[in-house]
Amino acid sequence: MEPVKVGLLGLGTVGGGTSNVLGRNFAEIARRAGRGIKVTHAAGRNVDHASLHHMDGVKITKDAFEVVDDPDVQIIVELIGGYEPARELVLKAIANGKHVVTANKALIAVHGNEIFTAARDAGVMVAFEAAVAGGIPIIKSIREGLAGNTIHWVAGIINGTGNFILTEMGSGGRNFDDVLAEAQALGYAEADPTFDVEGIDAAHKLAILASISFGIPLQFDKVYTEGISKVSRADMTYAEELGYKIKHLGIARRTASGIELRVHPTLIPHRRLIANVDGVMNAVLVSADAVGPTLYYGAGAGADPTASAVVADIVDVVRTMTSDPENRVPHLAFQHEALTNLPILDMEQVETSYYLRLEADDKPGVLADVTGILGRAGISIEAIIQKQPDDGQDCVPIIMLTHKVLEKQMNEAITSIEALDGVRGSVTRIRMESLSS
Amino acid sequence: MEPVKVGLLGLGTVGGGTSNVLGRNFAEIARRAGRGIKVTHAAGRNVDHASLHHMDGVKITKDAFEVVDDPDVQIIVELIGGYEPARELVLKAIANGKHVVTANKALIAVHGNEIFTAARDAGVMVAFEAAVAGGIPIIKSIREGLAGNTIHWVAGIINGTGNFILTEMGSGGRNFDDVLAEAQALGYAEADPTFDVEGIDAAHKLAILASISFGIPLQFDKVYTEGISKVSRADMTYAEELGYKIKHLGIARRTASGIELRVHPTLIPHRRLIANVDGVMNAVLVSADAVGPTLYYGAGAGADPTASAVVADIVDVVRTMTSDPENRVPHLAFQHEALTNLPILDMEQVETSYYLRLEADDKPGVLADVTGILGRAGISIEAIIQKQPDDGQDCVPIIMLTHKVLEKQMNEAITSIEALDGVRGSVTRIRMESLSS
Repeated sequence: MEPVKVGLLGLGTVGGGTSNVLGRNFAEIARRAGRGIKVTHAAGRNVDHASLHHMDGVKITKDAFEVVDDPDVQIIVELIGGYEPARELVLKAIANGKHVVTANKALIAVHGNEIFTAARDAGVMVAFEAAVAGGIPIIKSIREGLAGNTIHWVAGIINGTGNFILTEMGSGGRNFDDVLAEAQALGYAEADPTFDVEGIDAAHKLAILASISFGIPLQFDKVYTEGISKVSRADMTYAEELGYKIKHLGIARRTASGIELRVHPTLIPHRRLIANVDGVMNAVLVSADAVGPTLYYGAGAGADPTASAVVADIVDVVRTMTSDPENRVPHLAFQHEALTNLPILDMEQVETSYYLRLEADDKPGVLADVTGILGRAGISIEAIIQKQPDDGQDCVPIIMLTHKVLEKQMNEAITSIEALDGVRGSVTRIRMESLSS
Repeated sequence: MEPVKVGLLGLGTVGGGTSNVLGRNFAEIARRAGRGIKVTHAAGRNVDHASLHHMDGVKITKDAFEVVDDPDVQIIVELIGGYEPARELVLKAIANGKHVVTANKALIAVHGNEIFTAARDAGVMVAFEAAVAGGIPIIKSIREGLAGNTIHWVAGIINGTGNFILTEMGSGGRNFDDVLAEAQALGYAEADPTFDVEGIDAAHKLAILASISFGIPLQFDKVYTEGISKVSRADMTYAEELGYKIKHLGIARRTASGIELRVHPTLIPHRRLIANVDGVMNAVLVSADAVGPTLYYGAGAGADPTASAVVADIVDVVRTMTSDPENRVPHLAFQHEALTNLPILDMEQVETSYYLRLEADDKPGVLADVTGILGRAGISIEAIIQKQPDDGQDCVPIIMLTHKVLEKQMNEAITSIEALDGVRGSVTRIRMESLSS
């Protein structure tokens, strides 16, 4: 049988990795897929030929639309990233009757509903395993491996750069700015690190995970998003004293009143497996009614790990391309007409427990004022640490862990605490999750 | 569309769980699969109706062949376990043109080659996700999620009972016999615990994992198998002192000279995620060329977790039942004609590092004799602990970690050490794995 012909959009890190993996493992992949898979046409703006292997006989162009319009190409692999022109290229490929594989989380999270509708109308597949958690087959695991379950919640370390920074700040005792500079030097973080550091990249991925877990449309704009730039070493040390680690989590949870969608720094009991996922590694923990908790761990980024997921998608498409479209795995795990519009909760409606840190005057009565405010708001305290003032200081840090309470009530309590005479500056608040059920 | 009709063989723990999960999540599963899935006919020898739910309108019989021959049933789910009559029933179902889902690792590991050949000839699917690591979608992850990779090795904690016993011996400081009795009382271990404790159950699962990882036929009879009954609390304590935990691992590794297939207690550096998988939980660590290391964690047994995998398989079969058999995922991940007969290494040809413990007379020269034997055999020592004798004792324990050496050389060295005058009894040997690449 002739090899399947793949058109590659983007010849950067992931594009090069995909070309290399397809070439290097050509025989092993053909043993699995039943036929060869070959890149025949590729587009890249700044093609670095020296870093590309296995490109013999591949037509190379600067015009991605030329690849999308090539009648010989059967599968388009979009590895350009970003919203445009990726969206236009993918829609054109679909209109041309080609299957699409993409690693583009921004594209799927923001334009996925439009893209999947177009793909459905055209009877083609759009596969996106590489869009979430790099090489970890988390889309497939949730969408197919847990198909018998009602999924309760998903919590993931889904941004490798952020996890690298927090890990180095924690065990390395280093400062945020230092570590960010190193992450940029190592190529983990972009020159503009906003998407990683402010949680936007994680929010893209969380929107996708929530959709395939609960069968809801993609709703990136409703994800509550808080980055890691305000996490201090002091908070990490206090958290450790209390038996917790701080990780940047994406959390999607089904509750009686709606779906929680939130990305923020989170205290996790240090005994949990996911609390020990360090460096650039990713992990996703899924809680489901039949299987209970399952965890999926691996590299969340990088040329070869991302290529691993891209190639798995290509193999899936090759295996399924001749089948009746009605019998394929639905793009968002649930049949298109079965997607439900469950309400997404506003952050104020979310209930969690909290870590609070504040600086108070070193004089009697301040702690009583603070706990009084919490008590009147119905917020009960699970643990409290009041440190001695440092030499020559006249203020003391107070650290508290609370039981669960609505974010709205906590916001009001924090406003009242910050208005107290004996309290200086603002209250640091980090949410906590037990991740136990 | 009419619901798909499922025939259930076995109404014990897993059969009941499967019926319950299919019933409880009927709507959620139909949203995913595009149609309902319903048990219509079930067989069980000792049916406990009180523990079965969602069985309204289901025909129940004691004769499993009646279900297999029911012309209305489209998918047979075999949850009886054991070699016979499971083998006969599955082959009959295949001959009747029905798809099969099974949780039976013994059946697949020992009779899989015969069963898959029959299924291929009949154009039906045999799915077996639940046969390895219970609810963890490890078969799907390796077979599809890592389809772009050349897989280097797989190492797994794939017997929950064994892991429970080792965990309790380690952190609980309890004795093997005590914990085994508790495991039996809790229903984790069978009345005859041989399959769990002697590693046979893990060997069944490892044979399956090796087959789908490397594209080789199932070869259960070539798995080197060593159980946990000889692991002592003393060894666990010394291992801990040296920075290791002892876990019962199944390991399948591709080497230049052939495939290693082995199940035995193993020292793992305690910082590894898999070293911290405790109790009845399972985890599988896969090392592959593109994605690097990935780990999959979850419940390896129990009614509902196993049912989760069984139902995922049923959904897969339902999605694929109308497709061209040539385009389905191959049973053993690689196309039938692409399976290769790579040699399986004899245990003597395997190279690992070792933990050794021996009791020696408390007098000069014994340690020199021991290290001399190792030195002449080309075995270098990485760490050594010689304890003071306990009060009133005249012998001392010597504990050594070695670098990598062929098992054959180690066997010879151990024979020489045991023949020394100053050495008492036999040498305890536990293999070590860094699991780092």
